[in-house]
Amino acid sequence: MASEIAQPETTDAKSVGIVQTQYVTLFEPPHPLTLEGGQQLGPITVAYETYGELTPERDNAIYVCHALTGDAHVAGKHSVDSRKFGWWDGLVGPGKALDTNRYFVICANVLGGCQGTTGPSCRNPATGQPYGLRFPFITVGDMVEVHAALVRHLGIETLLGIVGGSLGGMQVLDWVARYPEMARSAICLASAAKLSAQGIAFNAVGRRAITADPQYQNGDYYGDEPAKYGEVGPRFGLALARMVAHITYLSEASIERKFGRDLQHSDHLAYDLQRETEFKIESYLHYQGKRFIERFDANSYLYLTRAMDYFDLTQRYGSLQKALGRTNARFLITSYHTDWLFPSSQSKEIVTALVETRRHVTYLELESVFGHDSFLIEIEQLEELVTPLLLETYRRIRDV
Amino acid sequence: MASEIAQPETTDAKSVGIVQTQYVTLFEPPHPLTLEGGQQLGPITVAYETYGELTPERDNAIYVCHALTGDAHVAGKHSVDSRKFGWWDGLVGPGKALDTNRYFVICANVLGGCQGTTGPSCRNPATGQPYGLRFPFITVGDMVEVHAALVRHLGIETLLGIVGGSLGGMQVLDWVARYPEMARSAICLASAAKLSAQGIAFNAVGRRAITADPQYQNGDYYGDEPAKYGEVGPRFGLALARMVAHITYLSEASIERKFGRDLQHSDHLAYDLQRETEFKIESYLHYQGKRFIERFDANSYLYLTRAMDYFDLTQRYGSLQKALGRTNARFLITSYHTDWLFPSSQSKEIVTALVETRRHVTYLELESVFGHDSFLIEIEQLEELVTPLLLETYRRIRDV
Repeated sequence: MASEIAQPETTDAKSVGIVQTQYVTLFEPPHPLTLEGGQQLGPITVAYETYGELTPERDNAIYVCHALTGDAHVAGKHSVDSRKFGWWDGLVGPGKALDTNRYFVICANVLGGCQGTTGPSCRNPATGQPYGLRFPFITVGDMVEVHAALVRHLGIETLLGIVGGSLGGMQVLDWVARYPEMARSAICLASAAKLSAQGIAFNAVGRRAITADPQYQNGDYYGDEPAKYGEVGPRFGLALARMVAHITYLSEASIERKFGRDLQHSDHLAYDLQRETEFKIESYLHYQGKRFIERFDANSYLYLTRAMDYFDLTQRYGSLQKALGRTNARFLITSYHTDWLFPSSQSKEIVTALVETRRHVTYLELESVFGHDSFLIEIEQLEELVTPLLLETYRRIRDV
Repeated sequence: MASEIAQPETTDAKSVGIVQTQYVTLFEPPHPLTLEGGQQLGPITVAYETYGELTPERDNAIYVCHALTGDAHVAGKHSVDSRKFGWWDGLVGPGKALDTNRYFVICANVLGGCQGTTGPSCRNPATGQPYGLRFPFITVGDMVEVHAALVRHLGIETLLGIVGGSLGGMQVLDWVARYPEMARSAICLASAAKLSAQGIAFNAVGRRAITADPQYQNGDYYGDEPAKYGEVGPRFGLALARMVAHITYLSEASIERKFGRDLQHSDHLAYDLQRETEFKIESYLHYQGKRFIERFDANSYLYLTRAMDYFDLTQRYGSLQKALGRTNARFLITSYHTDWLFPSSQSKEIVTALVETRRHVTYLELESVFGHDSFLIEIEQLEELVTPLLLETYRRIRDV
């Protein structure tokens, strides 16, 4: 998501420094992943990054699950001259909440994504052609299966923590439901145990924008040469999907405060229908759309939003209590009072289930003007909660 | 707007009966309308309906201003076998709040619309071709100028009341600011003295959906023969614009209550990305999109949403106090606690200005689950407020 309405400050001095994305191939035939929908997929390449050092005891690993349009690049920079830090650099680094002097932090691009992990824009090794819509249907659970396989591949049995917001928070919940013993703590921010009907509705609009674009060509828009995003495919449709989604990530108050009714080009109204970006908020949204298509694949957008729609722990386990009652992970749940896409009521459902099953849970509805994007922006607030939870969890297994 | 989530009951027995849309041509050259943007427009055909009888004193007229996608057909039916009543039949009719046994009710399709009043889909008499994007830029104030001209054409100097919700409410406010002596009461529902930045943002997305559709053809999609809506032009884009707007008219609670995560076709998930309408809410939105393009013109959608964006009484008059302080109309303002598109805070701004200028105002934030659409649905609630206001206003000028 990552609105650019406000980005936390970050500097080289406090950063993990230069990092590289790594790649591993898992689920090689004859051991493909059997997906929730019944299909099989393999091999699966996973793009991931790690920060900090794994202890010899392999007990200090924290897994970060990214949200819908995120990637494996959580912290640091990819090159010395790059000015772009990872998407959660404020939270992950030396002395930060996910303290890389103490912990070993892992993040991978999700299955179905478009930032290095196998997804619909990748070539199917069996045919040599991009998957497109022939990519199998995937769920949040399938993403978690790939995460778990990566963790095992790294020689780790138990994670100190799993952390994520929004779709990342769904992965956190699915993970502790699926593998209750695999995490000592679980941090789920601005998320839900199931996507709301309104969330499904907005996703449906985004997907429709993509599939109605004539350049979508039923998902086979890649061409023969590896094309850069933004040059082929349903550019208008994908940008439009991003525009509408972007509105849902912001709060009414933050849009009003940042843009209000300010004009972009002039101090007076143009009375010209063909001026598409007369108000600043319009210009901002169009810009967000344009930027997005340079880095994201339309088919991935379809697959990942559908996975969000499908996510429903109650439907899968019979009840939230059954889903979450088997883990001993210590939970931190936060919601944001201006987040109308994942309202606090949805976090409270999770908390209620945890309390009823006598799990350890801390819940806070946090004040922030930034709506759903708050978990990416309000870093200090988060740090105050995350730091002690991780430290205390770590102290329970060893003397640190 | 008119969601079909819940429609108030109406029957022939309580209806005004069979009504006909009437047409009048105003602003004939050499007396065109000078628009707020500076251009001139004329002749202007106005499609309107009236219900009830005008008194010899011409003192019982009430003007209804329709919302974005409404029309002149407020009450009754157009033919005996029609099953479709006007869009506010619950409020307008014999014995109802706008009691046609007592009052003379008028409603006209707005300037720029596509239900009979001159708009971009009409042929420019000077060229014989549809206006398309050559139609001049229009504002809420321009709509009101046409309403006021119609009222004068009907021989009426002073209205007993002006009533409207959403964009209709904007017309009500603009009217009493523009012609402070022209109304004895003003009823403004689920509206605002200016559109919020979030409202502009959603409108921008809707317009982008239309203009990015290749069938839009820069507004010249009508063809040579009069074509039925839904057969030509940016069908996908207009449907998509309606889908996203429709979400904003509903409350999260009403979507959740009506649809939740229910599936449309089956009792189990399909795990099939190509099934576009798997959840009921998706099917409902797609249906709303399809229905809408059968009755609405894409260019009108562009012009009318832009007029909404532009509406800002403070910008025009210097302050809301200056805009609203000159009329002696008795105000009724309502907002709905689940309406997030026109939140109560915006109605309160209007009320504050009215109180500060010592105008007569009644304000209620009403309870309703239906979000912005509440003013079209919660008729009984409205009746309790509107009936006494109109009666009392009428009693002040004559013994009824």
